[in-house]
Amino acid sequence: MTDEKTTDHNITDKHQQRMQKMKEKVDARIESATEERGILIVITGNGKGKSTSGFGTVARAVGHGLNAAVAQFIKGTWACGERQLLENAGVKFSVMGTGFTWNTQDKEKDIAAAQQVWLKCKELLSDTNIDLVLLDEMTYMLSYKYIDLDEVITALNNRPKHQHVIITGRACHRAIIELADTVSEIKSIKHAFDSGIKAQKGIDW
Amino acid sequence: MTDEKTTDHNITDKHQQRMQKMKEKVDARIESATEERGILIVITGNGKGKSTSGFGTVARAVGHGLNAAVAQFIKGTWACGERQLLENAGVKFSVMGTGFTWNTQDKEKDIAAAQQVWLKCKELLSDTNIDLVLLDEMTYMLSYKYIDLDEVITALNNRPKHQHVIITGRACHRAIIELADTVSEIKSIKHAFDSGIKAQKGIDW
Repeated sequence: MTDEKTTDHNITDKHQQRMQKMKEKVDARIESATEERGILIVITGNGKGKSTSGFGTVARAVGHGLNAAVAQFIKGTWACGERQLLENAGVKFSVMGTGFTWNTQDKEKDIAAAQQVWLKCKELLSDTNIDLVLLDEMTYMLSYKYIDLDEVITALNNRPKHQHVIITGRACHRAIIELADTVSEIKSIKHAFDSGIKAQKGIDW
Repeated sequence: MTDEKTTDHNITDKHQQRMQKMKEKVDARIESATEERGILIVITGNGKGKSTSGFGTVARAVGHGLNAAVAQFIKGTWACGERQLLENAGVKFSVMGTGFTWNTQDKEKDIAAAQQVWLKCKELLSDTNIDLVLLDEMTYMLSYKYIDLDEVITALNNRPKHQHVIITGRACHRAIIELADTVSEIKSIKHAFDSGIKAQKGIDW
Protein backbone atom coordinates (compact mmCIF):
# COMPACT_ATOMS: atom_id res chain seq x y z
CA MET A 1 0.00 0.00 0.00
CA THR A 2 2.78 2.37 1.02
CA ASP A 3 4.85 1.36 -2.06
CA GLU A 4 1.94 1.95 -4.38
CA LYS A 5 1.36 5.37 -2.93
CA THR A 6 5.03 6.24 -3.28
CA THR A 7 4.96 5.16 -6.94
CA ASP A 8 1.83 7.22 -7.57
CA HIS A 9 3.49 10.11 -5.87
CA ASN A 10 6.61 9.73 -8.04
CA ILE A 11 4.55 9.65 -11.23
CA THR A 12 2.69 12.77 -10.15
CA ASP A 13 6.00 14.42 -9.32
CA LYS A 14 7.45 13.53 -12.70
CA HIS A 15 4.40 14.88 -14.50
CA GLN A 16 4.65 18.09 -12.53
CA GLN A 17 8.37 18.45 -13.22
CA ARG A 18 7.85 17.83 -16.96
CA MET A 19 5.01 20.35 -17.08
CA GLN A 20 7.01 22.86 -15.04
CA LYS A 21 9.82 22.62 -17.62
CA MET A 22 7.34 22.99 -20.48
CA LYS A 23 5.79 26.01 -18.78
CA GLU A 24 9.22 27.66 -18.45
CA LYS A 25 9.87 27.09 -22.16
CA VAL A 26 6.46 28.39 -23.21
CA ASP A 27 6.75 31.41 -20.88
CA ALA A 28 10.18 32.27 -22.29
CA ARG A 29 8.83 32.16 -25.83
CA ILE A 30 5.83 34.29 -24.87
CA GLU A 31 8.12 36.82 -23.20
CA SER A 32 10.37 37.14 -26.26
CA ALA A 33 7.36 37.82 -28.51
CA THR A 34 6.66 41.47 -27.80
CA GLU A 35 5.76 43.12 -31.10
CA GLU A 36 2.13 43.98 -31.74
CA ARG A 37 1.01 44.96 -35.26
CA GLY A 38 -1.24 43.93 -38.09
CA ILE A 39 -0.03 40.69 -39.63
CA LEU A 40 -0.48 39.09 -43.04
CA ILE A 41 -1.70 35.49 -42.86
CA VAL A 42 -1.74 33.16 -45.87
CA ILE A 43 -3.75 29.93 -45.79
CA THR A 44 -2.89 27.92 -48.88
CA GLY A 45 -2.59 24.28 -50.05
CA ASN A 46 -5.01 21.78 -51.57
CA GLY A 47 -6.76 20.57 -48.41
CA LYS A 48 -10.17 21.48 -47.01
CA GLY A 49 -10.23 24.25 -44.42
CA LYS A 50 -8.73 27.36 -46.02
CA SER A 51 -11.82 29.55 -46.33
CA THR A 52 -13.40 28.21 -43.15
CA SER A 53 -10.20 29.08 -41.29
CA GLY A 54 -10.41 32.62 -42.68
CA PHE A 55 -14.06 32.94 -41.71
CA GLY A 56 -13.36 31.42 -38.27
CA THR A 57 -10.81 34.18 -37.68
CA VAL A 58 -13.33 36.79 -38.85
CA ALA A 59 -15.83 35.36 -36.34
CA ARG A 60 -13.13 35.52 -33.65
CA ALA A 61 -12.26 39.15 -34.44
CA VAL A 62 -15.88 40.29 -34.65
CA GLY A 63 -16.63 38.53 -31.36
CA HIS A 64 -14.01 40.81 -29.78
CA GLY A 65 -15.64 43.90 -31.29
CA LEU A 66 -13.08 44.41 -34.05
CA ASN A 67 -14.19 45.62 -37.49
CA ALA A 68 -13.78 43.01 -40.20
CA ALA A 69 -14.49 43.02 -43.93
CA VAL A 70 -14.54 40.20 -46.47
CA ALA A 71 -13.79 40.21 -50.19
CA GLN A 72 -14.76 36.98 -51.91
CA PHE A 73 -13.29 36.01 -55.24
CA ILE A 74 -14.63 33.13 -57.37
CA LYS A 75 -17.36 31.98 -54.99
CA GLY A 76 -20.44 33.98 -54.27
CA THR A 77 -23.09 32.41 -56.48
CA TRP A 78 -24.06 30.07 -53.64
CA ALA A 79 -25.65 31.29 -50.44
CA CYS A 80 -22.79 30.53 -48.05
CA GLY A 81 -23.90 30.02 -44.45
CA GLU A 82 -21.04 32.00 -42.93
CA ARG A 83 -21.99 35.07 -44.96
CA GLN A 84 -25.49 35.17 -43.51
CA LEU A 85 -24.21 34.85 -39.94
CA LEU A 86 -21.36 37.33 -40.30
CA GLU A 87 -23.36 39.97 -42.18
CA ASN A 88 -25.83 39.88 -39.30
CA ALA A 89 -22.86 40.58 -37.03
CA GLY A 90 -21.93 43.66 -39.08
CA VAL A 91 -19.25 42.26 -41.42
CA LYS A 92 -19.27 43.90 -44.87
CA PHE A 93 -18.97 41.54 -47.86
CA SER A 94 -17.74 42.36 -51.37
CA VAL A 95 -18.46 39.40 -53.59
CA MET A 96 -17.30 38.67 -57.13
CA GLY A 97 -20.45 36.62 -57.60
CA THR A 98 -19.64 35.21 -61.03
CA GLY A 99 -18.89 31.71 -59.81
CA PHE A 100 -16.04 29.51 -61.00
CA THR A 101 -14.25 30.51 -64.16
CA TRP A 102 -15.07 27.12 -65.75
CA ASN A 103 -18.72 27.97 -65.27
CA THR A 104 -18.68 31.43 -66.82
CA GLN A 105 -16.28 30.37 -69.62
CA ASP A 106 -15.91 34.07 -70.37
CA LYS A 107 -12.46 35.40 -69.56
CA GLU A 108 -13.22 39.08 -70.23
CA LYS A 109 -16.25 39.00 -67.96
CA ASP A 110 -14.24 37.23 -65.22
CA ILE A 111 -11.43 39.78 -65.41
CA ALA A 112 -13.89 42.68 -65.19
CA ALA A 113 -15.58 41.07 -62.17
CA ALA A 114 -12.22 40.40 -60.47
CA GLN A 115 -11.08 43.98 -61.07
CA GLN A 116 -14.26 45.31 -59.57
CA VAL A 117 -13.75 43.34 -56.34
CA TRP A 118 -10.06 44.32 -56.30
CA LEU A 119 -11.05 48.02 -56.44
CA LYS A 120 -13.11 47.42 -53.30
CA CYS A 121 -10.17 45.55 -51.71
CA LYS A 122 -7.91 48.57 -52.25
CA GLU A 123 -10.45 50.70 -50.40
CA LEU A 124 -10.51 48.23 -47.49
CA LEU A 125 -6.70 48.02 -47.41
CA SER A 126 -6.47 51.80 -46.96
CA ASP A 127 -9.30 52.13 -44.43
CA THR A 128 -7.96 52.69 -40.91
CA ASN A 129 -11.36 51.72 -39.45
CA ILE A 130 -10.98 48.13 -40.65
CA ASP A 131 -9.02 45.85 -38.31
CA LEU A 132 -9.15 42.65 -40.38
CA VAL A 133 -9.60 42.06 -44.10
CA LEU A 134 -10.24 38.57 -45.44
CA LEU A 135 -9.31 38.22 -49.12
CA ASP A 136 -10.99 34.89 -49.71
CA GLU A 137 -9.67 32.86 -52.68
CA MET A 138 -7.61 35.74 -53.98
CA THR A 139 -4.67 33.47 -54.91
CA TYR A 140 -6.47 32.26 -58.04
CA MET A 141 -6.85 35.82 -59.30
CA LEU A 142 -3.06 36.18 -59.16
CA SER A 143 -2.47 32.78 -60.79
CA TYR A 144 -4.79 33.70 -63.67
CA LYS A 145 -3.29 37.22 -63.80
CA TYR A 146 -6.79 38.70 -63.46
CA ILE A 147 -5.36 41.20 -60.96
CA ASP A 148 -1.85 42.65 -60.85
CA LEU A 149 0.65 41.18 -58.38
CA ASP A 150 2.61 44.41 -57.94
CA GLU A 151 -0.56 46.32 -57.19
CA VAL A 152 -1.53 43.77 -54.55
CA ILE A 153 1.91 43.91 -52.90
CA THR A 154 1.87 47.71 -52.87
CA ALA A 155 -1.59 47.77 -51.30
CA LEU A 156 -0.53 45.22 -48.66
CA ASN A 157 2.65 47.15 -47.83
CA ASN A 158 0.83 50.47 -47.54
CA ARG A 159 -2.08 49.27 -45.42
CA PRO A 160 -2.70 50.69 -41.90
CA LYS A 161 -0.12 49.37 -39.43
CA HIS A 162 -2.67 47.70 -37.15
CA GLN A 163 -4.62 46.00 -39.96
CA HIS A 164 -4.56 42.20 -40.23
CA VAL A 165 -5.05 40.58 -43.63
CA ILE A 166 -5.84 36.95 -44.44
CA ILE A 167 -5.40 35.61 -47.98
CA THR A 168 -6.77 32.15 -48.80
CA GLY A 169 -6.61 29.87 -51.84
CA ARG A 170 -4.48 27.20 -53.46
CA ALA A 171 -1.01 27.76 -54.90
CA CYS A 172 -0.34 31.17 -53.35
CA HIS A 173 2.23 33.23 -55.29
CA ARG A 174 5.74 33.06 -53.81
CA ALA A 175 6.01 36.85 -53.49
CA ILE A 176 2.93 36.93 -51.22
CA ILE A 177 4.28 34.04 -49.15
CA GLU A 178 7.55 35.92 -48.67
CA LEU A 179 5.66 39.03 -47.58
CA ALA A 180 3.44 37.13 -45.11
CA ASP A 181 4.05 36.83 -41.35
CA THR A 182 2.17 33.55 -40.92
CA VAL A 183 1.77 30.94 -43.65
CA SER A 184 -0.10 27.65 -43.26
CA GLU A 185 -0.24 25.04 -45.99
CA ILE A 186 -3.25 22.73 -45.76
CA LYS A 187 -2.48 19.31 -47.21
CA SER A 188 -5.35 17.03 -48.17
CA ILE A 189 -4.83 13.62 -46.59
CA LYS A 190 -8.27 12.54 -47.79
CA HIS A 191 -11.54 14.15 -48.80
CA ALA A 192 -15.11 12.79 -48.47
CA PHE A 193 -15.87 14.00 -52.01
CA ASP A 194 -13.36 11.45 -53.37
CA SER A 195 -15.35 8.65 -51.68
CA GLY A 196 -18.54 9.67 -53.46
CA ILE A 197 -19.98 11.92 -50.77
CA LYS A 198 -21.54 15.05 -52.25
CA ALA A 199 -20.94 18.61 -51.14
CA GLN A 200 -23.27 19.26 -48.22
CA LYS A 201 -24.93 22.37 -46.84
CA GLY A 202 -23.28 23.67 -43.68
CA ILE A 203 -20.07 21.78 -44.38
CA ASP A 204 -19.02 22.59 -47.94
CA TRP A 205 -20.86 25.86 -48.44
CA MET B 1 -6.43 45.31 -87.25
CA THR B 2 -8.20 42.26 -88.61
CA ASP B 3 -5.24 40.01 -87.64
CA GLU B 4 -5.23 41.37 -84.09
CA LYS B 5 -8.92 40.72 -83.73
CA THR B 6 -8.49 37.17 -85.04
CA THR B 7 -5.72 36.55 -82.50
CA ASP B 8 -7.86 37.93 -79.68
CA HIS B 9 -10.66 35.75 -80.85
CA ASN B 10 -8.40 32.67 -80.88
CA ILE B 11 -7.20 33.34 -77.35
CA THR B 12 -10.77 33.75 -76.17
CA ASP B 13 -11.72 30.55 -77.97
CA LYS B 14 -8.86 28.63 -76.35
CA HIS B 15 -9.82 29.90 -72.90
CA GLN B 16 -13.40 28.85 -73.49
CA GLN B 17 -12.38 25.40 -74.73
CA ARG B 18 -10.08 24.86 -71.75
CA MET B 19 -12.77 25.99 -69.34
CA GLN B 20 -15.39 23.87 -71.13
CA LYS B 21 -13.16 20.80 -70.61
CA MET B 22 -12.61 21.70 -66.96
CA LYS B 23 -16.35 22.15 -66.48
CA GLU B 24 -16.99 18.68 -67.95
CA LYS B 25 -14.44 17.16 -65.56
CA VAL B 26 -15.85 19.00 -62.55
CA ASP B 27 -19.44 18.15 -63.51
CA ALA B 28 -18.56 14.44 -63.89
CA ARG B 29 -16.97 14.44 -60.43
CA ILE B 30 -19.97 16.21 -58.92
CA GLU B 31 -22.31 13.71 -60.57
CA SER B 32 -20.42 10.69 -59.22
CA ALA B 33 -20.58 12.07 -55.66
CA THR B 34 -24.13 11.18 -54.64
CA GLU B 35 -23.99 10.04 -51.03
CA GLU B 36 -25.30 12.39 -48.36
CA ARG B 37 -24.58 11.67 -44.69
CA GLY B 38 -22.83 13.05 -41.65
CA ILE B 39 -19.07 13.06 -42.13
CA LEU B 40 -16.12 13.03 -39.76
CA ILE B 41 -13.58 15.77 -40.49
CA VAL B 42 -10.13 15.88 -38.87
CA ILE B 43 -8.04 19.06 -39.00
CA THR B 44 -4.59 18.24 -37.67
CA GLY B 45 -0.94 19.31 -38.13
CA ASN B 46 1.28 21.95 -36.53
CA GLY B 47 0.18 25.00 -38.52
CA LYS B 48 -2.13 27.86 -37.55
CA GLY B 49 -5.76 27.47 -38.64
CA LYS B 50 -7.09 24.25 -37.10
CA SER B 51 -9.51 25.65 -34.52
CA THR B 52 -10.45 28.65 -36.67
CA SER B 53 -11.32 26.24 -39.50
CA GLY B 54 -13.54 24.29 -37.10
CA PHE B 55 -15.23 27.47 -35.88
CA GLY B 56 -15.59 28.74 -39.45
CA THR B 57 -17.50 25.58 -40.31
CA VAL B 58 -19.67 26.02 -37.21
CA ALA B 59 -20.43 29.58 -38.39
CA ARG B 60 -21.27 28.20 -41.85
CA ALA B 61 -23.61 25.53 -40.45
CA VAL B 62 -25.34 27.89 -38.04
CA GLY B 63 -25.81 30.43 -40.84
CA HIS B 64 -27.81 27.75 -42.66
CA GLY B 65 -29.97 27.14 -39.61
CA LEU B 66 -28.31 23.88 -38.56
CA ASN B 67 -27.81 23.06 -34.86
CA ALA B 68 -24.17 23.04 -33.83
CA ALA B 69 -22.43 22.37 -30.52
CA VAL B 70 -18.84 22.87 -29.44
CA ALA B 71 -16.74 21.00 -26.89
CA GLN B 72 -13.45 22.73 -26.12
CA PHE B 73 -10.58 20.85 -24.57
CA ILE B 74 -7.45 22.55 -23.15
CA LYS B 75 -8.42 26.13 -23.99
CA GLY B 76 -11.22 27.96 -22.31
CA THR B 77 -9.49 30.12 -19.75
CA TRP B 78 -9.30 32.97 -22.28
CA ALA B 79 -12.38 34.76 -23.57
CA CYS B 80 -12.24 33.60 -27.19
CA GLY B 81 -13.94 35.95 -29.63
CA GLU B 82 -15.61 33.20 -31.63
CA ARG B 83 -17.32 31.86 -28.52
CA GLN B 84 -19.04 35.17 -27.82
CA LEU B 85 -20.30 35.48 -31.40
CA LEU B 86 -21.42 31.85 -31.75
CA GLU B 87 -23.10 31.63 -28.34
CA ASN B 88 -25.16 34.65 -29.37
CA ALA B 89 -26.15 32.66 -32.46
CA GLY B 90 -27.35 29.78 -30.28
CA VAL B 91 -24.34 27.45 -30.28
CA LYS B 92 -23.90 25.54 -27.01
CA PHE B 93 -20.35 25.39 -25.62
CA SER B 94 -18.90 22.83 -23.21
CA VAL B 95 -15.53 24.07 -22.05
CA MET B 96 -12.78 22.26 -20.12
CA GLY B 97 -11.68 25.63 -18.79
CA THR B 98 -8.55 24.47 -16.99
CA GLY B 99 -6.13 25.90 -19.54
CA PHE B 100 -2.99 24.20 -20.78
CA THR B 101 -1.72 21.20 -18.91
CA TRP B 102 1.66 22.90 -18.35
CA ASN B 103 -0.21 25.67 -16.57
CA THR B 104 -2.22 23.51 -14.20
CA GLN B 105 0.69 21.07 -13.59
CA ASP B 106 -1.86 18.81 -11.93
CA LYS B 107 -2.48 15.63 -13.90
CA GLU B 108 -5.35 14.32 -11.76
CA LYS B 109 -7.23 17.58 -12.01
CA ASP B 110 -6.67 17.69 -15.79
CA ILE B 111 -7.95 14.15 -16.24
CA ALA B 112 -11.07 14.87 -14.19
CA ALA B 113 -11.74 18.02 -16.22
CA ALA B 114 -11.20 16.17 -19.53
CA GLN B 115 -13.53 13.37 -18.44
CA GLN B 116 -16.22 15.86 -17.53
CA VAL B 117 -16.12 17.45 -21.00
CA TRP B 118 -16.01 13.98 -22.61
CA LEU B 119 -19.21 13.02 -20.76
CA LYS B 120 -20.87 16.03 -22.37
CA CYS B 121 -19.41 15.02 -25.76
CA LYS B 122 -21.02 11.59 -25.48
CA GLU B 123 -24.36 13.30 -24.92
CA LEU B 124 -23.87 15.47 -28.01
CA LEU B 125 -22.76 12.48 -30.11
CA SER B 126 -26.01 10.68 -29.32
CA ASP B 127 -28.32 13.69 -29.72
CA THR B 128 -30.25 13.52 -33.01
CA ASN B 129 -31.08 17.23 -32.73
CA ILE B 130 -27.43 18.20 -33.19
CA ASP B 131 -26.25 18.44 -36.81
CA LEU B 132 -22.62 19.36 -36.19
CA VAL B 133 -20.32 18.75 -33.22
CA LEU B 134 -16.94 20.45 -33.01
CA LEU B 135 -14.52 18.62 -30.71
CA ASP B 136 -11.90 21.36 -30.49
CA GLU B 137 -8.38 20.22 -29.52
CA MET B 138 -9.55 16.76 -28.60
CA THR B 139 -6.46 15.09 -30.14
CA TYR B 140 -4.33 16.08 -27.14
CA MET B 141 -6.68 14.30 -24.75
CA LEU B 142 -6.09 11.08 -26.70
CA SER B 143 -2.32 11.62 -26.87
CA TYR B 144 -2.18 12.13 -23.10
CA LYS B 145 -4.62 9.22 -22.59
CA TYR B 146 -6.88 11.51 -20.55
CA ILE B 147 -9.85 10.02 -22.41
CA ASP B 148 -10.20 6.51 -23.81
CA LEU B 149 -9.64 5.99 -27.54
CA ASP B 150 -12.01 3.02 -27.82
CA GLU B 151 -14.77 4.97 -26.13
CA VAL B 152 -14.28 7.85 -28.57
CA ILE B 153 -14.36 5.52 -31.59
CA THR B 154 -17.52 3.78 -30.32
CA ALA B 155 -19.25 7.12 -29.76
CA LEU B 156 -18.25 8.33 -33.24
CA ASN B 157 -19.44 5.10 -34.88
CA ASN B 158 -22.79 5.14 -33.06
CA ARG B 159 -23.63 8.80 -33.63
CA PRO B 160 -26.76 9.84 -35.61
CA LYS B 161 -26.30 9.15 -39.33
CA HIS B 162 -26.77 12.78 -40.37
CA GLN B 163 -24.42 14.23 -37.74
CA HIS B 164 -21.15 15.85 -38.83
CA VAL B 165 -18.20 15.87 -36.43
CA ILE B 166 -15.02 17.93 -36.61
CA ILE B 167 -11.98 17.02 -34.50
CA THR B 168 -9.08 19.48 -34.31
CA GLY B 169 -5.61 19.39 -32.76
CA ARG B 170 -2.03 18.34 -33.49
CA ALA B 171 -0.88 14.76 -33.96
CA CYS B 172 -4.28 13.15 -34.36
CA HIS B 173 -4.32 9.44 -33.46
CA ARG B 174 -4.05 7.14 -36.51
CA ALA B 175 -7.25 5.27 -35.62
CA ILE B 176 -9.27 8.50 -35.80
CA ILE B 177 -7.63 9.45 -39.10
CA GLU B 178 -8.58 6.05 -40.53
CA LEU B 179 -12.17 6.52 -39.37
CA ALA B 180 -12.45 10.04 -40.81
CA ASP B 181 -13.98 10.95 -44.18
CA THR B 182 -12.00 14.17 -44.66
CA VAL B 183 -8.57 14.80 -43.17
CA SER B 184 -6.55 17.99 -43.62
CA GLU B 185 -3.05 18.41 -42.28
CA ILE B 186 -2.03 22.01 -41.70
CA LYS B 187 1.70 22.50 -42.10
CA SER B 188 3.33 25.58 -40.63
CA ILE B 189 5.45 27.29 -43.30
CA LYS B 190 6.07 30.20 -40.93
CA HIS B 191 4.45 31.78 -37.90
CA ALA B 192 4.46 35.43 -36.79
CA PHE B 193 5.12 34.30 -33.20
CA ASP B 194 8.54 32.99 -34.27
CA SER B 195 9.44 36.49 -35.51
CA GLY B 196 8.71 38.01 -32.12
CA ILE B 197 5.12 39.04 -32.74
CA LYS B 198 2.95 38.35 -29.72
CA ALA B 199 -0.41 36.57 -29.72
CA GLN B 200 -3.03 39.17 -30.59
CA LYS B 201 -6.72 39.55 -29.79
CA GLY B 202 -8.99 38.63 -32.69
CA ILE B 203 -6.26 36.66 -34.43
CA ASP B 204 -4.84 34.22 -31.89
CA TRP B 205 -7.72 34.06 -29.44
